[in-house]
Amino acid sequence: MYYPVISQCTQALKSLRTFLDKAEQHAAARKFDVGILMGSRLAPDMLDFIYQVQSACDYVKGAAAWLSGQAVPRHEDNEKTIDELRARIDKTIAFVQSVPESQYAGAAERQVRFSWAPGKIIAGDDYLLQMTIPNTYFHISMAYAILRSNGVDLGKMDFLGPINLVAG
Amino acid sequence: MYYPVISQCTQALKSLRTFLDKAEQHAAARKFDVGILMGSRLAPDMLDFIYQVQSACDYVKGAAAWLSGQAVPRHEDNEKTIDELRARIDKTIAFVQSVPESQYAGAAERQVRFSWAPGKIIAGDDYLLQMTIPNTYFHISMAYAILRSNGVDLGKMDFLGPINLVAG
Repeated sequence: MYYPVISQCTQALKSLRTFLDKAEQHAAARKFDVGILMGSRLAPDMLDFIYQVQSACDYVKGAAAWLSGQAVPRHEDNEKTIDELRARIDKTIAFVQSVPESQYAGAAERQVRFSWAPGKIIAGDDYLLQMTIPNTYFHISMAYAILRSNGVDLGKMDFLGPINLVAG
Repeated sequence: MYYPVISQCTQALKSLRTFLDKAEQHAAARKFDVGILMGSRLAPDMLDFIYQVQSACDYVKGAAAWLSGQAVPRHEDNEKTIDELRARIDKTIAFVQSVPESQYAGAAERQVRFSWAPGKIIAGDDYLLQMTIPNTYFHISMAYAILRSNGVDLGKMDFLGPINLVAG
């Protein structure tokens, strides 16, 4: 399940990238600086849109690296503009897509460590199911919610991306 | 991947159920009717909290039924109160947990049909990855966002639920 799930999370990052285009169009139409949306948050004590994008990227990047037995590439959290966020998403997708399916062999037996949980490990399957999937979709959903609650023209299909319906 | 993914989505519904408790506590502390939160929405043209819960439940229920070769149990969307939402979540979880792992054998070969896509089918794996996971987490995230933006004391750990970290 590792390769298909991580591929689908990568697809979710592609959807997230389209949110940026819609945010930009909305700001242009309403004649305000799109940076205001990038710094928006759902509640004063929640993190902003930029963080939600960075975090979604990091959960997908981390899954691809940990579960394929590679060091996690370091991406600095220094994005401030919408174009920098696009680049962050693009380099994340490029890294994840560089990992061939065969490299996830044995992912279930891999052990993942977090800096915030010293002395603890989580098995590959639990990491995928309990961390990667929920966190990736959580942060993409929060990014969606921030834009949507600010009037950006997003709908569920923007979130879902392509659905492989065929004649039958 | 069918049984573990659907089990994790069921865990997400259990997390969603704890959001209701926190919403209730918040309303009681601030002395307002928790029904106001149940009817809240992130934007005027988005659906309300009650719908988000119903929809999250239905995506998990649908996955468990379709992918195990059963008719989808019909749950009317008639909830109006927080206790009715608890019951909706509970009956969804009860149904999903009634499906043994063995009944997902052959799920990849199952074909799923949607009333909104006549003449079309989607394969079991695409349905799980492109519909079940994204929609389940989307609606639970929207429920979270509605409550969180209204001041309910929710955090990421409430969303994630148990994480199987072990000594290592």
